[in-house]
Amino acid sequence: MQSVERLQRTFIQSLEASMGEPEWSRQPDRLYAPQRYILAMGGKRLRPVLALMGAEAVGAKAEVALPAAHAVERFHNFSLIHDDIMDAAPLRRGHATVHERWGVNTAILSGDALFALAFKALEAAPKSALPELYRVFTQTAMEVCEGQQWDMDFEHEDRVEEGAYLRMIQYKTSVLLGCALQMGVLSGGGSAEVAQALYSFGLELGTSFQIHDDLLDAFGDPAKTGKQAGGDLIQGKKTMLWIELGRRSPEHLNEAMALSGSERVDVLTEALETTGVRAYVESRRKEHFDRALVALGRAGDLGAATPDLRELAEWLFSRES
Amino acid sequence: MQSVERLQRTFIQSLEASMGEPEWSRQPDRLYAPQRYILAMGGKRLRPVLALMGAEAVGAKAEVALPAAHAVERFHNFSLIHDDIMDAAPLRRGHATVHERWGVNTAILSGDALFALAFKALEAAPKSALPELYRVFTQTAMEVCEGQQWDMDFEHEDRVEEGAYLRMIQYKTSVLLGCALQMGVLSGGGSAEVAQALYSFGLELGTSFQIHDDLLDAFGDPAKTGKQAGGDLIQGKKTMLWIELGRRSPEHLNEAMALSGSERVDVLTEALETTGVRAYVESRRKEHFDRALVALGRAGDLGAATPDLRELAEWLFSRES
Repeated sequence: MQSVERLQRTFIQSLEASMGEPEWSRQPDRLYAPQRYILAMGGKRLRPVLALMGAEAVGAKAEVALPAAHAVERFHNFSLIHDDIMDAAPLRRGHATVHERWGVNTAILSGDALFALAFKALEAAPKSALPELYRVFTQTAMEVCEGQQWDMDFEHEDRVEEGAYLRMIQYKTSVLLGCALQMGVLSGGGSAEVAQALYSFGLELGTSFQIHDDLLDAFGDPAKTGKQAGGDLIQGKKTMLWIELGRRSPEHLNEAMALSGSERVDVLTEALETTGVRAYVESRRKEHFDRALVALGRAGDLGAATPDLRELAEWLFSRES
Repeated sequence: MQSVERLQRTFIQSLEASMGEPEWSRQPDRLYAPQRYILAMGGKRLRPVLALMGAEAVGAKAEVALPAAHAVERFHNFSLIHDDIMDAAPLRRGHATVHERWGVNTAILSGDALFALAFKALEAAPKSALPELYRVFTQTAMEVCEGQQWDMDFEHEDRVEEGAYLRMIQYKTSVLLGCALQMGVLSGGGSAEVAQALYSFGLELGTSFQIHDDLLDAFGDPAKTGKQAGGDLIQGKKTMLWIELGRRSPEHLNEAMALSGSERVDVLTEALETTGVRAYVESRRKEHFDRALVALGRAGDLGAATPDLRELAEWLFSRES
């Protein structure tokens, strides 16, 4: 965890310093205050750390990937602002969401401006890497929008196939992790082969990460996750748990969906255990984690970065929140 | 008008051809259908035409600026999708707005994806111009968001100064016209001086254009504008007419604001005439038009492009819709 913590500090210092830059004192403040607010909320800073690790993986200084790190973190927070509107979410990390605090219109618009500022961050990246950085970043931005649209479409579908679910989480979550690493490698002047291998590493890690989130929702400790136990189950969200239970035992699912609140959660969590769905989903989570390590192997010997990236993967795999 | 029509055709042909490109057949279709819908609505195609004219102004073929033309047109339509949500507008150019037809969530998200696709369009621009194209485009995107936020802020203010109003329309409308020309010049390999002069030309033209819109709202022929007569006046929008009437004759404004609908419009349009506000605002519109021509002069001799740009300015100045 030493490297992760070191790179988290590097990014956070740069984030705090960046707040003194002219773009953050632009007017009207009502447009920029919500952006500063969500960027200051914290979190694991996973995406910027991955960007910095990508640069170190190819023997460059982490700092060379700071523009890419800011770009992915700003993009991630832009997508959170807009997703929270679409989900009508009142809280994020224990704070009021942007649209709750400033209204939907300012939330739409400050999200848009943060998307623009994500592109602005890239201007400071190494010039020779710029066209490729913009290309990868733009492609990922489109895919994240596609993933979010699929997620919304699932709400209106009775049945979702596991393949469609995996594609959705890959686009909504995984590609940005892969993109962060790839942009770090490109910023550090690394080869297309290493960039591609670490992109795959990030992609598989992201998929494992999202399945993990689904499991924590149902089986995690609310005191650690900071979320309502079974929140997804109560809402009837089409996670891998929901899909697989519907495939194995639709009667269990129907029985539970006739209930509500914690009663539904109790019936569902028991059914997920007895039908073997939990164990199955755990095995799928492990499968994507293993694939991430295979992809890491394809990147070849990256010196100290190889154990650093493996450590980061294991940290994410064992997290309880 | 020959050049404007020729370049409108060039752009529309390219737009139609672009719909056959892979990015427009991506899934989920529910994300891309709203984007195709708004792009197909038509309009003057003013921004892409300006981009193409910028390239011709520096002796390059118009086609070299097609990537920039698509970028500004996509960005403009992205901003229309989101603005229509914020304004709760049911109609645009006689068609249902995106949020009316597909819902607010898909409108937010398809707008976001169109913003990403605007950046994607730039990938095909001349490589040597890329960093500067991205820089100018990103800066403009931020400013357009700022202009929209100011516009929303004005709704909650009793009094708006003319300077604040001019800054708002400059950011919300004018900068994208300047940006289109500047990006065309850069795509054509033109000098920074010509890029700057034509940027100023576009900026002043945009300001004159927006003041013109305000005047058409109050005094235009609804059969020609396709808009409700006095729509801004009924809503109490802080246009230059509203601001100047409030400055010259607050009693007229108060009297009118106590009325509603067409009664308010009748009282206001008469007051705007008798107090000289209409003539004053017309003079301000002319002033920015004249400044645009001065900026065009600063660009030096641009061959056939000089009369083309002047003709375009005059077409906009004399438009009735």
